[in-house]
Amino acid sequence: MTYDLPALHVAVADVRVIVFESADPEFFIAHGDMRFVTDPDVLAAASAATLAANPDADVPSTLNLMQVVHEEVRALPQVTIGKLNGLARGGGNEFLMALDMRFAAVGKAGQAQPEVLLGIMAGGGGTQYMTSLIGRARTLELLLSAQLADAELAERYGLVNRALPADEIDDFVTSLARRIGALRPEIIAAVETAVTAAGQPITREGLSTENSLLTPLFSADAAALAHKLLAAGMQTREGELNLEALLAQ
Amino acid sequence: MTYDLPALHVAVADVRVIVFESADPEFFIAHGDMRFVTDPDVLAAASAATLAANPDADVPSTLNLMQVVHEEVRALPQVTIGKLNGLARGGGNEFLMALDMRFAAVGKAGQAQPEVLLGIMAGGGGTQYMTSLIGRARTLELLLSAQLADAELAERYGLVNRALPADEIDDFVTSLARRIGALRPEIIAAVETAVTAAGQPITREGLSTENSLLTPLFSADAAALAHKLLAAGMQTREGELNLEALLAQ
Amino acid sequence: MTYDLPALHVAVADVRVIVFESADPEFFIAHGDMRFVTDPDVLAAASAATLAANPDADVPSTLNLMQVVHEEVRALPQVTIGKLNGLARGGGNEFLMALDMRFAAVGKAGQAQPEVLLGIMAGGGGTQYMTSLIGRARTLELLLSAQLADAELAERYGLVNRALPADEIDDFVTSLARRIGALRPEIIAAVETAVTAAGQPITREGLSTENSLLTPLFSADAAALAHKLLAAGMQTREGELNLEALLAQ
Repeated sequence: MTYDLPALHVAVADVRVIVFESADPEFFIAHGDMRFVTDPDVLAAASAATLAANPDADVPSTLNLMQVVHEEVRALPQVTIGKLNGLARGGGNEFLMALDMRFAAVGKAGQAQPEVLLGIMAGGGGTQYMTSLIGRARTLELLLSAQLADAELAERYGLVNRALPADEIDDFVTSLARRIGALRPEIIAAVETAVTAAGQPITREGLSTENSLLTPLFSADAAALAHKLLAAGMQTREGELNLEALLAQ
Repeated sequence: MTYDLPALHVAVADVRVIVFESADPEFFIAHGDMRFVTDPDVLAAASAATLAANPDADVPSTLNLMQVVHEEVRALPQVTIGKLNGLARGGGNEFLMALDMRFAAVGKAGQAQPEVLLGIMAGGGGTQYMTSLIGRARTLELLLSAQLADAELAERYGLVNRALPADEIDDFVTSLARRIGALRPEIIAAVETAVTAAGQPITREGLSTENSLLTPLFSADAAALAHKLLAAGMQTREGELNLEALLAQ
Repeated sequence: MTYDLPALHVAVADVRVIVFESADPEFFIAHGDMRFVTDPDVLAAASAATLAANPDADVPSTLNLMQVVHEEVRALPQVTIGKLNGLARGGGNEFLMALDMRFAAVGKAGQAQPEVLLGIMAGGGGTQYMTSLIGRARTLELLLSAQLADAELAERYGLVNRALPADEIDDFVTSLARRIGALRPEIIAAVETAVTAAGQPITREGLSTENSLLTPLFSADAAALAHKLLAAGMQTREGELNLEALLAQ
């Protein structure tokens, strides 16, 4: 029971997007191993082994093992997408919430934090991640009721980006991942950094960060691409009406 | 006209959940008394009487009476749930927004802040509570238009957790309250504290708070419960497919 | 190519609401001029001309021209409403997001940030404005996929306040603008200031600001209006059931 963090540390030049899905049609990740509760030594041993296997990981003494793993996932330079075709509960749903975005299949997906019914609480980042995604009122409801949220409720609450028909989710996520995977890594990094700098409310610091990330992107390459797109019909009425199609070529 | 704050101060060991609903099928709370506007002495007298009746209340000099009452409600250790079967306007809706969560009956519920049409503005916490719930753009729309939001719009905007069919809301809220009421008070307190510590964006401080609240919950009681649940089928495929039912036993 | 900022600086006493819409049924604002990418001199010249024409504008050296324009729009004392009957992409959508609120026509509206497909990124405030409106997960999806969001998706994500049927949006926005336009400027200013002071989570400072803005509104005028409304039926059951109609008279 060792989390092998370095396995995730792939050079950004090689991998730009990671789609997390499950080979099991009914479960994404069931939840953390109950031995963590029944036998404290199992958790301690897993923590020690993970630390030994990841000597370079940033492991603050105030965080627990699951939080550290989820924070590592959250800090990945790749764009991370969760495709939820089954159930994700407890630590499994916390892992899912640590990803950059999530999509759920209607009629199949389910998310819950059942911890309070086990006499504990969500503690792998769940209280923080869920509040950030769906706000305090809905988080309290889901954490204290411990009930399953289906795909439609998850979309309405903001727990996933979208609920998608089960027969469309594969194509949607593949298409999204391919689009992102076709971008240059420095573009992806700039967007992620600028979005992460966004304050609530909007701050001048965030705007300055955005601008400092944008400026170096005005390159000769971008100018050449723009010339090509103008020649192909961009900035004509016809081209603008179907700009996404024109840009996809 | 005295708000009797201590009446709400029930020991957490005795009461874990409070459902606020109205005996009047058409109104939750109509709104603040207009005499607060027509006769400043009424407001001053109510404030003085409330202060006298609540010598221990935290009453900052920069807040007004309604804000103080709503902040006391917001600080209650119990989980507070609003069940909205009728109209809540002005101070009535501000009270509702001060609760931990809210549910609205389709075809019956209505929420509005009509203050601007009275030449004043929402001032019992409403500008702060609503922005926290639904964001700046939708808050400005509702506060400046002073129009009624029905249950469906309230759900889409996030003003309530969910809009529920009028013939289902009682069962839903009762079931939710019973689930929460069955939890140990220290679990409820830990979840509420962790969620309240959640920053936007996610902070290391919030995660550390979550972990420090989780750690003491790994008790012998939790271990015994986990052993029982494992024996009952948790961590088997069958048990996990209907985990909520298994945990409800 | 000079943005004439002072043209927007109308005295608040004269104009209280500005509705931005397009005379072109297919486009709101297409996007920034591609010459900004193909020819850096065009952008530099536009910046210089804008600065010269707006000697009093607050132009921090760390922001770019489009950010400055959008921040000026965001700081307008008037309530700004976007009516989206067509396409808004790139800088056009950033302008739209800088407004106080937005409404989109079903079947006609579309919003996108296509920048990453041009080898650059949204840089006119878009990364900050969108994250503030719809959160990190959905912002990353829209910015990195560069796909068009239709009116329904825009409402579900919070990119617009509401999606409205195309044959209703004109009446809805006109009615909203007239309601707001009928308010006294100091009421509008107080509401906007209080909402802008709202923190996430709720802060005592925000509540104090709300209270300090409310207090001076308890005027003889407000008392006289309240007396009139009480005489007209406010605080009677009948009057309260249709309070919005009563207040509209």
